[in-house]
Amino acid sequence: MSAPDRVMVGIDLGGTKVRAGIAVPDAPGALAELERPTASEGGRALVTQLAELVRDLCREASVPLDHLAAIGIGGAGVPDAGQGGFDQAPNLGDVSSVSLVDELRLAVGCPVVLDNDVNVAALGELAAGIGREHDDFAFVSIGTGIGMGLVLGRELVHGAGNAAGEIGYLPFGADPLDPAAHRRGALEEVVAGDALAARYAPGATAREVFARAADGDPRAVSALDEEARWIAHAIAAVDAIVDPGRVVLGGGIGSRPELLEAILGWLDRLGRGRLPVTISALGSAAPVLGALRLASDAATDRTHEGVPA
Amino acid sequence: MSAPDRVMVGIDLGGTKVRAGIAVPDAPGALAELERPTASEGGRALVTQLAELVRDLCREASVPLDHLAAIGIGGAGVPDAGQGGFDQAPNLGDVSSVSLVDELRLAVGCPVVLDNDVNVAALGELAAGIGREHDDFAFVSIGTGIGMGLVLGRELVHGAGNAAGEIGYLPFGADPLDPAAHRRGALEEVVAGDALAARYAPGATAREVFARAADGDPRAVSALDEEARWIAHAIAAVDAIVDPGRVVLGGGIGSRPELLEAILGWLDRLGRGRLPVTISALGSAAPVLGALRLASDAATDRTHEGVPA
Repeated sequence: MSAPDRVMVGIDLGGTKVRAGIAVPDAPGALAELERPTASEGGRALVTQLAELVRDLCREASVPLDHLAAIGIGGAGVPDAGQGGFDQAPNLGDVSSVSLVDELRLAVGCPVVLDNDVNVAALGELAAGIGREHDDFAFVSIGTGIGMGLVLGRELVHGAGNAAGEIGYLPFGADPLDPAAHRRGALEEVVAGDALAARYAPGATAREVFARAADGDPRAVSALDEEARWIAHAIAAVDAIVDPGRVVLGGGIGSRPELLEAILGWLDRLGRGRLPVTISALGSAAPVLGALRLASDAATDRTHEGVPA
Repeated sequence: MSAPDRVMVGIDLGGTKVRAGIAVPDAPGALAELERPTASEGGRALVTQLAELVRDLCREASVPLDHLAAIGIGGAGVPDAGQGGFDQAPNLGDVSSVSLVDELRLAVGCPVVLDNDVNVAALGELAAGIGREHDDFAFVSIGTGIGMGLVLGRELVHGAGNAAGEIGYLPFGADPLDPAAHRRGALEEVVAGDALAARYAPGATAREVFARAADGDPRAVSALDEEARWIAHAIAAVDAIVDPGRVVLGGGIGSRPELLEAILGWLDRLGRGRLPVTISALGSAAPVLGALRLASDAATDRTHEGVPA
């Protein structure tokens, strides 16, 4: 069997781990996948790590490096304008001072495009999830933080400065007039994983809150209900502003079925009970699938769905 | 001088008056303009009135009716899907049961397109106002109600069901969990003209509140400050969700300079002080200019910026 002529690499660049896959365009499934802890020094060490990851994926898939058509990256940050890195990426070290795109392109010799991780997961939904049936949707991810990838007419909405979907800054949840809430946003202050955990007990984890709630612990049930309440407010705000038609939930917290029930209850009380809200069927596969789609679009010049850098 | 070959008519269809202009595509200024009280019976009477208005405009401009290439209408409602009328248009009588588009087309013999009035005013801004310098902006209109027309990449964002920009339904202002707030929306319950007036005194008008505030009446100043506070919350929510880059204010209330100052103060307190917010330079000319643009787009098949009906 000969090596495929053109392959793509998709990378989900998280604060703690990097997951990546290599695939032939428009073919289902990856030829190979890899997962590693994120280079903790960030910055240039990250470029070195990603270049190595790409070479290893090519080797695993038995594809020469020069058959690589493009690399797509979803990362936990807001892509900067034209510099090829991320602004506001506290979990990725000194990456904003390095042009991730340029340096990785030099290292591996193919175009590199990047976008915000939640936007990229939404692209994954568009390519392989809810987007198989619907042209419009909002993908809302709740985990370490909260974010949204908005797809209208099969196109990702980036906004004027690539900061569309930063819904952690919605002006409710914590007091939006309190300057302490401005750094990560009034909504994120109450729905982020650590906020959910802290509502239950000091030192707890979000995972524990779900476990205790399943056991019937009233404090855990109430902490989750508060979580659902503010997520429902966010969905109602998104609905009023952009009419996405439907909402898909993802992320470690957003994917929990017991939370969905409470969210739907609050949406009903907010007069938005008819809006379809479901949990992502792709789960943690969405970001790598979306990064592959980003790469595929870049290789075919459909860069309007990614952020050309 | 011979009559122009191709002309457009743009109609601003309000609950109390209809304003319309006739123009040559891409030429500055209208050949003629007319304003009349809206046919109070609504429905079919409205079709008759609009057909007459179009004929009168052609006569005033000395253009034969068959030189009319298209008609664009902005109306106070949410366009229904494919039926050629409006859903949710309480101020336009029984119009949802009549196909405005089809019947007017039959009466005057050219394509007719319609869209929500605030969206159409945003198109006016795109063609002749802020859009001359910027590709992305949110046009927020506050008067009888509140609404938004969102332009990203020089395209109007309609949403999945043509209800994008219905920001009166944002879940703050009045209690969003109170079913009484669901009909016109929790935000609209506190920022609509009648709500502003009622905050000052029973039986007052919004115009009076501005006059009294200018005289230094502390109750009027406080009623306006509350207005500014919730408008700022809405702008902050729009900024978080779609990153419009800048906001243009319009409408009878939104155009008041004394309110802008207070809105900017609240935005600063909300951590959004850097977002550029200005008052529309077009004022009440925007809807007719936008309706002409809608007509022009329809005549040249650029229907993606209007709602093809």
